[in-house]
Amino acid sequence: MNRKTKEKTRQEQAEETKERIRRVALELFSTKDYGTVTVSMICRAAHVSNGLLYNYFPSKESILLDEFYKADQRYLEIERSFYEGQPAKERMLLLMQAIWGSVCHSGILSQRAIRVAYINILKNGVSEALSLDRPVWAITRNIIHYAKERGELRAGYSSFDASLLFTILSIGFVSTSLWDIVQKDVDGYEKEFFHVIDLALDGVFQNPDGL
Amino acid sequence: MNRKTKEKTRQEQAEETKERIRRVALELFSTKDYGTVTVSMICRAAHVSNGLLYNYFPSKESILLDEFYKADQRYLEIERSFYEGQPAKERMLLLMQAIWGSVCHSGILSQRAIRVAYINILKNGVSEALSLDRPVWAITRNIIHYAKERGELRAGYSSFDASLLFTILSIGFVSTSLWDIVQKDVDGYEKEFFHVIDLALDGVFQNPDGL
Repeated sequence: MNRKTKEKTRQEQAEETKERIRRVALELFSTKDYGTVTVSMICRAAHVSNGLLYNYFPSKESILLDEFYKADQRYLEIERSFYEGQPAKERMLLLMQAIWGSVCHSGILSQRAIRVAYINILKNGVSEALSLDRPVWAITRNIIHYAKERGELRAGYSSFDASLLFTILSIGFVSTSLWDIVQKDVDGYEKEFFHVIDLALDGVFQNPDGL
Repeated sequence: MNRKTKEKTRQEQAEETKERIRRVALELFSTKDYGTVTVSMICRAAHVSNGLLYNYFPSKESILLDEFYKADQRYLEIERSFYEGQPAKERMLLLMQAIWGSVCHSGILSQRAIRVAYINILKNGVSEALSLDRPVWAITRNIIHYAKERGELRAGYSSFDASLLFTILSIGFVSTSLWDIVQKDVDGYEKEFFHVIDLALDGVFQNPDGL
């Protein structure tokens, strides 16, 4: 085995260990109370020596936050894909589809992370995971600013109004999806959800000619 | 002391005990995991003999549900106050103000109950407390049906679409209020919230003449 192959194998092993720690931690967070789960408990459950978690994650919190940073990276990619002159409504719809994707199609780990973050916020107050400083809100504000400049915001809406409405809609949208996921096949709802989101967006955005 | 006064005193004592059990139970639900709180724990913490809880509540769950039934009674009162010919938008606004009142102005016990119910749903699936069978959703559907009949629903909206949108909006609205309560003075947001809700309602409802 040459040196390069050996290094790759080590890296693969490290990735596997990191994934195992992540999976076990999110499992523990969602079955026990997040606040009572310690780094030692995670290491024990992942069958690694005590404290090894810190080789892969700066803290317990960062395991949870990582899931949200991954989602943020997808949202920023969506924003980079916007083309000049694209209607604001279309931009917002793409962002909301990406949010839906994060909640419903990015695997059980992320769904679990979102649930744990929600629970933790309800118990202990707003955390970084769902803070209003996250890129998803900045992208929302950018779309609204762009709509305002192009005359695509309906009469009566200030940028602040539109931002607050999309905060309420996005949080309602994610919460409703989380509830439905618990009981039902979420794909059965995707079409209905986006039809309604489309109608709601028509209430906020208009064509530049005012139609 | 005549018999009537004595009975009243007993009734008052019973009310006080019931309130103490309720307060202690909601306190325990919100500091520990709801699922791990037993009737014995509640009785011990309320300094009453084991099992006395059942003199006042049919079950542990009913302590939580009671808070939601109280809110439902307020919503049903609002519905009874609707007058014939009242615009659908006005009816919906009154309902949403009542929902805001339940979350923000009905005291710390109810806020705690709402949080615990949300957390429990996120952990264990939809419970009675936030089931779609609650009167609040029936009232929403009634308002939409009334709007549809009177031609006050905007073109493009089916009754189903409007119901789903108000489900998303109400849940988003309550979730956002719960987050803000955690950190900030909620009264500072009330005006902004209702301005935005008013704008959102304009996107769904129209005057019967189509304006």
